Amino acid sequence: MSERLILTLAILGGTGKVGPGLAYRWAKAGYHVIIGSRTPEKAEHTAAVVNDRLNREVVRGMSNEKAADVCDIAILTVPYEAHASILESLKDHLDGKVLVDTTVPLVPPDVGIVQMPSAGSAAQEAQEILGEQVDVVAAFQNVAFKHLHEDHPVPCDVLVCGDSEEAREQALHLVSAAKLVGWDAGPLQNAVVVEGLTSVLLGINQRYKMDGAGIQITGEPAKKRANR
Amino acid sequence: MSERLILTLAILGGTGKVGPGLAYRWAKAGYHVIIGSRTPEKAEHTAAVVNDRLNREVVRGMSNEKAADVCDIAILTVPYEAHASILESLKDHLDGKVLVDTTVPLVPPDVGIVQMPSAGSAAQEAQEILGEQVDVVAAFQNVAFKHLHEDHPVPCDVLVCGDSEEAREQALHLVSAAKLVGWDAGPLQNAVVVEGLTSVLLGINQRYKMDGAGIQITGEPAKKRANR
Repeated sequence: MSERLILTLAILGGTGKVGPGLAYRWAKAGYHVIIGSRTPEKAEHTAAVVNDRLNREVVRGMSNEKAADVCDIAILTVPYEAHASILESLKDHLDGKVLVDTTVPLVPPDVGIVQMPSAGSAAQEAQEILGEQVDVVAAFQNVAFKHLHEDHPVPCDVLVCGDSEEAREQALHLVSAAKLVGWDAGPLQNAVVVEGLTSVLLGINQRYKMDGAGIQITGEPAKKRANR
Repeated sequence: MSERLILTLAILGGTGKVGPGLAYRWAKAGYHVIIGSRTPEKAEHTAAVVNDRLNREVVRGMSNEKAADVCDIAILTVPYEAHASILESLKDHLDGKVLVDTTVPLVPPDVGIVQMPSAGSAAQEAQEILGEQVDVVAAFQNVAFKHLHEDHPVPCDVLVCGDSEEAREQALHLVSAAKLVGWDAGPLQNAVVVEGLTSVLLGINQRYKMDGAGIQITGEPAKKRANR
């Protein structure tokens, strides 16, 4: 974990649907937030939109490479089609860092059917590409992006998987900072469940005519938790 | 779907932790319920225990084979170690029926790590063994058995997967009859998520010192639902 007082978060591929919502929430919580994109101008534009909403000039936009270089923790928010190629291109920039991978390996046209890549899950694929110099954590896959753009409490918990317990802890801090409820869901191998759950939820949205179905973990923990 | 007015349910391997709880709930809902076991005397004993709780003599006990023969819908509640062998032995008795498979492929000692069989999930393995003459549906894997033995509302939803939409509908009726909230979770291929979720929940129980963690689907369906 970095010794810096305020951590810098880079949201790589952050100009899509999920990135701006997370950027808003983390900037509001006091983190230094950078939006990364292959096209720096797009990143700057998205940062400006988030800053408008925050009414402060705190979020910056730059290339994915630069964002990865200067960050303490990176968060990847790209569609699965771009997943492997962006990871290959950023590999050297992420050395020694934690990467929080939000990717869901959806296979169109029927995104409601669970279909995992041969690595077992997108997050395991990321770990294979990046090697053991990077601690990959899977998180945020199940939260419908529309909830991230709203200020009310989000009716969807975040399951966090990763092989490094310290990295899972760091990701759980980011979950709390984003005003979401997080759960330590074990090793990276368990990401198949969390990623696949998104397909199950998308299928439920279709079948029950819902918008943004989510999940919550039920039961009373003896160990105290934030945000609930 | 059988034309009989009151359906007969056979809970195969029903003398364990999950069987009696489901038997109690379905008998209370008016179904004819049979407990099946390799040892008929054990099945009769478990049936007697459930009848005591119901204060009526309605649940019967018999061999798994006989129970499978006379039932309209079979429900399998065995530990994963017994899964393949019991299915092989009952294959001819289940022809043309729906089998609701509650099995979770836990791999001790660390049951909190998701580890699926080569078929993809226990339910897909069941479908492979039984062939296309049987409609396998995966359900009830995530509900901690202690909740089934209590009369209060169960704080865990049931995700139902299967390749036959009609069989999924029948299983969803059984979920409602057991006073649980069920969701159509799509094709049998999605069972990897539902079965694996049990390992995630068991890991959460351990890490957060909980007993019987469950899941609930959040969001407002436009389509009306029972039990919530």
